[in-house]
Amino acid sequence: MNITVKKLQIRTKKSVELINITPEINEIIYNLKVKNGFVLIYTKHTTTALIINENEDRLLSDIKETLLRIVPKGAGYKHDQIDNNAHSHIIASLIGNSLCIPIINGSMDLGTWQSILFIELDGPRTRTITVQTYSE
Amino acid sequence: MNITVKKLQIRTKKSVELINITPEINEIIYNLKVKNGFVLIYTKHTTTALIINENEDRLLSDIKETLLRIVPKGAGYKHDQIDNNAHSHIIASLIGNSLCIPIINGSMDLGTWQSILFIELDGPRTRTITVQTYSE
Amino acid sequence: MNITVKKLQIRTKKSVELINITPEINEIIYNLKVKNGFVLIYTKHTTTALIINENEDRLLSDIKETLLRIVPKGAGYKHDQIDNNAHSHIIASLIGNSLCIPIINGSMDLGTWQSILFIELDGPRTRTITVQTYSE
Repeated sequence: MNITVKKLQIRTKKSVELINITPEINEIIYNLKVKNGFVLIYTKHTTTALIINENEDRLLSDIKETLLRIVPKGAGYKHDQIDNNAHSHIIASLIGNSLCIPIINGSMDLGTWQSILFIELDGPRTRTITVQTYSE
Repeated sequence: MNITVKKLQIRTKKSVELINITPEINEIIYNLKVKNGFVLIYTKHTTTALIINENEDRLLSDIKETLLRIVPKGAGYKHDQIDNNAHSHIIASLIGNSLCIPIINGSMDLGTWQSILFIELDGPRTRTITVQTYSE
Repeated sequence: MNITVKKLQIRTKKSVELINITPEINEIIYNLKVKNGFVLIYTKHTTTALIINENEDRLLSDIKETLLRIVPKGAGYKHDQIDNNAHSHIIASLIGNSLCIPIINGSMDLGTWQSILFIELDGPRTRTITVQTYSE
């Protein structure tokens, strides 16, 4: 088995923001010439998350607004007495901080409308994502 | 390391529906004679999801109704101006589109009440699931 | 490829509870001398879940209360006619029952504030978690 690891740094610009990182992950896999296997994408923060969905601006706005409707900022959380970002932690917990994506014949097996979206929930900040590939 | 890949096609029948795909995944693992490792199950769509839970009819109905209560259809989403399924995308993002399940001694390490459930959120459609196994 | 598997047993004490299992997972990886690869942590139950977030008491309380606000106990679920825990199953489905974490240079690649948290949703019970490692 061949394992590789790369670190991806992202500079986010807003407090809550969805960022398409598919090109960066594609480039890593292309440069490593991974043929068959999977990629494990892992964000090292407790107020960020990762999803796979459609990279369409109005949808990204809907996702953001729906997350903040379900878990609103400043809704009497106890953790806000320490740091005013309990909602960011809770949303990150609901969504998850890692993705596993098959790689087949040199490319991620993404469907037509699938993009890899990084979710900043307490920005702007510099964020680090670990990208591991596993192949034969 | 031994990697295998299979494509599973599902024809869904309703707009929102939970479908038990455990038998199909069991059959793939059995036929491939995978002994120890894991299976990565990955749906290639942005309006479907995968969970592991109990395959009990009343519970499946509760899960469906709760998802649509938390993220209702047509609740003023901007993406609905393009395609009337923003809620499907948002629910799919919340739940996730892949599962990793250990395989031990030739079988998935599912607990007594665990089944693999495919969630259609914008059907009926024909859907494709990628099933990769990794073993020694 | 080297695959190992361990079973971790946890005795939970409350109906809903978040428990930090990072020390137990660290110990498994340390004892196995896994150098580079990943760990797959998998809970075998339909009323438990796993997240990675900050192990801070007030935040854990906020997460618990928010989950029960989004999916309240006894809110007219059909499954409650069989077993009074539909909300536990639904929350478990929303969050997910497994984690994949990179291992780099002998340690999990957890960020500064990241802990592995087991979520009991229908306790107290004895719970089993499967811990598999994959390395070169």
